[in-house]
Amino acid sequence: VPSNSSSEPGFARDVFVLPRAPGGSDAVYLAGNSLGAQPRPAREALVSAVDEQWAAVGVAGWEECGWWATPQRLGDRVGALVGAAPGQIVVGDSTSVQLFGALIAAARLRPGRTVLLSDAGHFPTDRYLATSVARLTGLTLATAAPDAMAPDAEVAVVAVPAVDFRTGERWDLATITERAHAAGAVVVADLSHAAGVMPVGLDALGVDLAVGCTYKYLNGGPGAPAFAYVAARHHDRLDPPLTGWTGHADPFGMTEAWTPAPGVGRLRVGTPPMLSMLALDGALGVFDDVDLADVRAASLALGDAFLSGLPDAVDVVTPHQHDRRGGHVAVRVPDAGGLCAALARRGVVVDARPPDLLRFGFAAPYVTLDDAATAARELAALL
Amino acid sequence: VPSNSSSEPGFARDVFVLPRAPGGSDAVYLAGNSLGAQPRPAREALVSAVDEQWAAVGVAGWEECGWWATPQRLGDRVGALVGAAPGQIVVGDSTSVQLFGALIAAARLRPGRTVLLSDAGHFPTDRYLATSVARLTGLTLATAAPDAMAPDAEVAVVAVPAVDFRTGERWDLATITERAHAAGAVVVADLSHAAGVMPVGLDALGVDLAVGCTYKYLNGGPGAPAFAYVAARHHDRLDPPLTGWTGHADPFGMTEAWTPAPGVGRLRVGTPPMLSMLALDGALGVFDDVDLADVRAASLALGDAFLSGLPDAVDVVTPHQHDRRGGHVAVRVPDAGGLCAALARRGVVVDARPPDLLRFGFAAPYVTLDDAATAARELAALL
Repeated sequence: VPSNSSSEPGFARDVFVLPRAPGGSDAVYLAGNSLGAQPRPAREALVSAVDEQWAAVGVAGWEECGWWATPQRLGDRVGALVGAAPGQIVVGDSTSVQLFGALIAAARLRPGRTVLLSDAGHFPTDRYLATSVARLTGLTLATAAPDAMAPDAEVAVVAVPAVDFRTGERWDLATITERAHAAGAVVVADLSHAAGVMPVGLDALGVDLAVGCTYKYLNGGPGAPAFAYVAARHHDRLDPPLTGWTGHADPFGMTEAWTPAPGVGRLRVGTPPMLSMLALDGALGVFDDVDLADVRAASLALGDAFLSGLPDAVDVVTPHQHDRRGGHVAVRVPDAGGLCAALARRGVVVDARPPDLLRFGFAAPYVTLDDAATAARELAALL
Repeated sequence: VPSNSSSEPGFARDVFVLPRAPGGSDAVYLAGNSLGAQPRPAREALVSAVDEQWAAVGVAGWEECGWWATPQRLGDRVGALVGAAPGQIVVGDSTSVQLFGALIAAARLRPGRTVLLSDAGHFPTDRYLATSVARLTGLTLATAAPDAMAPDAEVAVVAVPAVDFRTGERWDLATITERAHAAGAVVVADLSHAAGVMPVGLDALGVDLAVGCTYKYLNGGPGAPAFAYVAARHHDRLDPPLTGWTGHADPFGMTEAWTPAPGVGRLRVGTPPMLSMLALDGALGVFDDVDLADVRAASLALGDAFLSGLPDAVDVVTPHQHDRRGGHVAVRVPDAGGLCAALARRGVVVDARPPDLLRFGFAAPYVTLDDAATAARELAALL
């Protein structure tokens, strides 16, 4: 349990095991926007799942250990962190799979419309899957920058991220959603680069469907399962394409036809990856009794410390304004890959995105102001 | 490492932790057709992944720890157990998701044809997803028993299991595939109830695509990732619907359009659930240097011991003939749920499938002839 105030950067640092720097000390780990560091409770939950559940209980664990209920139980835990009331989120599968299902289900909420409108600079998987969904559903794919989107009455679905994966720009989901709804479209938001680093307020924004990953700022571990949100007002009409048996109203009835489970449970697909799910369950403990507004303030303070430590000549592509910034800051450099490796040799872990961006992620639970200052200093030295 | 011959039932029992019976001793665990018991190397691999990889290495683990290559590395390991030469299998996602992708990709190999022909008694998720795929692709769904299938020139895809999930009947994949190919159709086989308990011989049979799960006889743990096979002759034309970024030819290039990876790598979708994947990696060690023909012989011997211990009056729905039997034996009883619970109280773990079947799974690595005899005796006593 963190002892510090959650508005203080590094408030839960003693709960985490940080990757090692070349000399053996803790790295300055600023790659939490890609893979979060390991919270000790994630390890504890996983070992418990392996020893006390799978090994000791076996197949009865689906009931006796609560495995069956886990996708929705974890969904409610994630929901508390993204502003979704209980009963609207399931956890499982990968973000790509959840997105595919969400886009088709969203399109089916607006039959007769012809356009799927997606962020032109969306994360690759979002763009590739939008293309595939358009092909399968017969929709036409159109793209625009999120802040330039002007959907009309032909648009069925507006697909946007909360935060740009490269630049770290935070999009104005409130305005995007308002415009989409004014045109009668539904919004599918990708929260991968927002969940756990800032409040999202899905219910309050009126977003229709959302997906996101849990291995970045939620620290669920490599390839931790994704989540999918559907606003309760759509549940009765929701018609998803991935009609797996665990989303059936009576999964062990094994009936002839697929009858969707009531509510968001119909978004469940196959047997969920329980070991990865329970690691996430432990990891989410980091956020118990923590206000995401505090985490956001701490993350912004870290970004500010980093930015103020950079020489003026550095090309920062992330907006400086707090309300337009996500959890990471990106800088444009001549040799992103080489600099990324050089920083790692100096104990500063970041990542590079082609062709020329370095990303610095500010996960407030374990990153300190000293870390942010060190990263700026080392980058300046290398430039 | 197992010390016994793999043709002997229970040949690797000391490698497994068996679930506990009510008195605290090892259960007679015959639910390996649902969730395999835990091999100790699975635990070791998982703890190593958590401590030495995620915690210590962080995001660099995708390269330094070989995470990125894992879906295809594990695919080759599974391939060795189902008769597939390297480079034709990926591991990841759930069986339901893999099946959805495989059915659409299979249909696209036969453009212009109009029918998806599926086993009428297929596992529910297979039937539900076939319905969804037919709706998305415009195919007409037709059903028949696998041994009664007579595909004609309108049939694009024939979807069958290797073993019936309820009755334990093993279908004749050689004949089914021959008939399908004679009609110009492609075969999608579900190996969930076959992989790890018998040789399958995918390449030799000429099966086109296949999927299967790894948490049954491959002992990968609850919700362990599934696998998907595509015969090499189809790779160049394979056009899957789940166009996630990890199946891209240049995944970190983040290019505008999705360019499929060469070979079976294009079946990768999103970020794979690495902790669950590495548990499976450890679990597969049970089969190192083991001949599946020996495992099959041992499993059949277990089934024979069970069957010979049953009173004549018991209604066995599984064929007695070895070549028509899978890894489990099913009996029809008046109160399957009640009997399942009563057996569990006596330390015999099996499962029930509605409306009236009890299934006894014979996973030869850890089930002994004594276990099989005990199960028959306890069932007889309860009946």
